Amino acid sequence: MTRVTADIAVSVDGFSAGPHQSEENPLGESAQSALHSWMFDHADDHREELDAILEGRAYVMGRNMFGPIRGEWTGDWRGWWGPEPPYHGPVFVLTHHPRESVEMDGGTTFHFVTDGPEAALERARDAAGDGIVSIAGGADTLNQFLARGLIDELRLHIAPVTLGLNGRTDVVRLFDGVPPLALDPVRVRSTPHVTHVTYRLT
Amino acid sequence: MTRVTADIAVSVDGFSAGPHQSEENPLGESAQSALHSWMFDHADDHREELDAILEGRAYVMGRNMFGPIRGEWTGDWRGWWGPEPPYHGPVFVLTHHPRESVEMDGGTTFHFVTDGPEAALERARDAAGDGIVSIAGGADTLNQFLARGLIDELRLHIAPVTLGLNGRTDVVRLFDGVPPLALDPVRVRSTPHVTHVTYRLT
Repeated sequence: MTRVTADIAVSVDGFSAGPHQSEENPLGESAQSALHSWMFDHADDHREELDAILEGRAYVMGRNMFGPIRGEWTGDWRGWWGPEPPYHGPVFVLTHHPRESVEMDGGTTFHFVTDGPEAALERARDAAGDGIVSIAGGADTLNQFLARGLIDELRLHIAPVTLGLNGRTDVVRLFDGVPPLALDPVRVRSTPHVTHVTYRLT
Repeated sequence: MTRVTADIAVSVDGFSAGPHQSEENPLGESAQSALHSWMFDHADDHREELDAILEGRAYVMGRNMFGPIRGEWTGDWRGWWGPEPPYHGPVFVLTHHPRESVEMDGGTTFHFVTDGPEAALERARDAAGDGIVSIAGGADTLNQFLARGLIDELRLHIAPVTLGLNGRTDVVRLFDGVPPLALDPVRVRSTPHVTHVTYRLT
């Protein structure tokens, strides 16, 4: 049976992006380096977790993870990852704008799904078979899947910072709008750069 | 030099209490057992962390940690802990109501401090000497100390639940009103009941 995993980098106070996201600064002010230093500057120390993030046989991601939040990516935009994205499989992008699939080098194909999270997951499940479907983010997308009870394993990569964004209405926090959950912490590992916690949803 | 530690049990979404706190239900609806099951039902599995919570030579706590949020504890109320509280030392309670100190069995004395967090901490430092001052909670009190940069070590005891209280204005979340922080995760340990993460404030 397909297993549905989800990975997200968050601050200790639960944010995965800052305000004022843009093409130059996709995660918003101050959040980019603070939340992702562990994977960009210290990849060798976190190889196991980085490999796990990309072990999906198919992926689902939100439109803001695929392109700039205010950008016009329904035209030529082909994602943040250059000609050969690291997914090497089908990626189902949630959007309100229908678009032809985009085939990239190395086996990644972006499909654009306009009929919601369940439909995207169904297509990803079909593509993944017995493999893993990975919900790639961002927080808003994870919240939709968590609220619907569609995630089996949630992997938090907790960067050792707080962003201090309480009260901001222009940023999404992980678990916003998600009803109470019971979780099972099945794995934890910490380095000076990040604390990894894997929860099984029960 | 005095070291200032702080312990708090939080949900994965960062809450340390639910709404509708009362004398019967000091942590509010649904939060009591969810957040503290690890210490009440599984104490033997978490002896090291429980001992560390009580290693202070002096304590500071908020008025809501000392008594019911709407209760009239300025009269006879002597805390939640019965005749012999587990602190065995001076406890400085932040309040707006002056009151004579209350001496309990086993060395615990509750002192009531009306001139704010810095004053309470100063008195606790004087009492602790080279020992530890422990900020005992709740979230509102920790936030005041975190915002002022007065905590050396923050120990989160993350219960494997979310409370789903986003948008509630009657509950305090850890880090509410605290400017961005840089933290250093120096210890992590997880059991099926709780994930302990110790951060040094840098």
